Amino acid sequence: MNENKYPLISLPSDPRIRALRDLQTPNGRSNTGKYLIEGIRHVARACEEQVQIDLLFVDPSALSNPFGQKLVRHIRQNGVPAIRLAPKVYREITRASEPQGIGAVLRQRWFSVDELRPERNSLWLAVESVDQPGNLGTIIRTAEAAGASGIFLLGQGADPLDPACLRATMGAFFSQKLVPCSTWEFARWARLHNVAIVGSSPQGLMNYRDFRCRWPAVLLVGSERQGLSQQLIDTTDFVVRIPMHGRSDSINAAVAAGILLFELSSRRKRDK
Amino acid sequence: MNENKYPLISLPSDPRIRALRDLQTPNGRSNTGKYLIEGIRHVARACEEQVQIDLLFVDPSALSNPFGQKLVRHIRQNGVPAIRLAPKVYREITRASEPQGIGAVLRQRWFSVDELRPERNSLWLAVESVDQPGNLGTIIRTAEAAGASGIFLLGQGADPLDPACLRATMGAFFSQKLVPCSTWEFARWARLHNVAIVGSSPQGLMNYRDFRCRWPAVLLVGSERQGLSQQLIDTTDFVVRIPMHGRSDSINAAVAAGILLFELSSRRKRDK
Repeated sequence: MNENKYPLISLPSDPRIRALRDLQTPNGRSNTGKYLIEGIRHVARACEEQVQIDLLFVDPSALSNPFGQKLVRHIRQNGVPAIRLAPKVYREITRASEPQGIGAVLRQRWFSVDELRPERNSLWLAVESVDQPGNLGTIIRTAEAAGASGIFLLGQGADPLDPACLRATMGAFFSQKLVPCSTWEFARWARLHNVAIVGSSPQGLMNYRDFRCRWPAVLLVGSERQGLSQQLIDTTDFVVRIPMHGRSDSINAAVAAGILLFELSSRRKRDK
Repeated sequence: MNENKYPLISLPSDPRIRALRDLQTPNGRSNTGKYLIEGIRHVARACEEQVQIDLLFVDPSALSNPFGQKLVRHIRQNGVPAIRLAPKVYREITRASEPQGIGAVLRQRWFSVDELRPERNSLWLAVESVDQPGNLGTIIRTAEAAGASGIFLLGQGADPLDPACLRATMGAFFSQKLVPCSTWEFARWARLHNVAIVGSSPQGLMNYRDFRCRWPAVLLVGSERQGLSQQLIDTTDFVVRIPMHGRSDSINAAVAAGILLFELSSRRKRDK
């Protein structure tokens, strides 16, 4: 690496460090419209998905991985501003459990309902108020794997830019269309484009294996504790349930979303 | 509560406190054959499942919940030894994120392969080397909900008695038959009882929706990073895969287990 060609920051009071630290907080992120990612895998995936990188930060003493070093050269060759951090400054910023010496500042990229034109056989997901960032991230990752076209984020749930959520998406965060919107906007979009709304709830009347569905369709999943709000239940075409055995009355929200998304995904192929 | 009738411990150096603290470590658990649970929900569920409680511990100042107080009275009426902990002693022991002032010491209860006689249509799960305790707990919870008869624990994975695992099982830990055993013992059991072994892997040749299965059957899931070992793959009747869309090459281990367990569970009903 041409280590001399980009600035080294060794003071924690440097305003650029304060700016990075701010991005680890919800307020800092919403004030700037930016967010922070960490780790070789996530930075590489952001590059692959051609997400615009505002700033690259590196602690060369912690970046021993050759692929990571090559990644830094590649990103810098594309003209992205970069800074080097002294180890003690880097340790103040990182939230990674095993810091790899690399991170980046990205611009937030959200979609609005008005941009989304559902294709004839498309599958969508809407998530209401999932509390745990790790669960939300796992759901985003699962939706990508099931072939969802986009994810509506409804209600007051976990912050999708929380580091634990970003980590759990395993990069799907950069490729999925994420649409924060109100219940009203969501319902209007579904009506306008004639999208079937499939709710899910332990109180659902239909076994999730037995229903028939028209396309395009959107699956609604609620929070683990509260389930779906009545307001959203009222928008559904029908509500399915996953039957439980033993003394179980519920399963993990991400597992439930996975079971239902893959059920819909494989029906879509049959229905096509 | 008859608070005067059971001893109050206010010194962290008390040998009973050291014993409780030891149970928060893998060594302490394996040396004693006991483990520790926390929280009203888990203690109540252990009672329901008639798990033998060796010792109840309570911090009355933190146990404000009326149901929790009733639970303590109920357990003590059944002759279970109990101790009260001073708040600062309790804080030293608890690992709960929101301590509820109640916990218990239980005897570990494992099953051996020789005790298990699979019923004709039964569904089983075998887990190899799942690393994260939370994931392992979620898998145990999901297996219970899917109607599994028991879970084989193979390889070097997370400790099922880790507090994060116990919490994630949401009580299924007490009702599921858990069978730590070697690959060799597992394979012998399956052969002896003519149990179909269904492997799962991103490299599996068969789409998980398309295969036919005989019963009883056991589903094999591997660790998120490594998948199943070749040794276990060699024991399978066949290996299924969950097809992925987008750039995804894998999904969370607990989500994958959920999709496959519920697929098998609903086929079992059809096949019966």
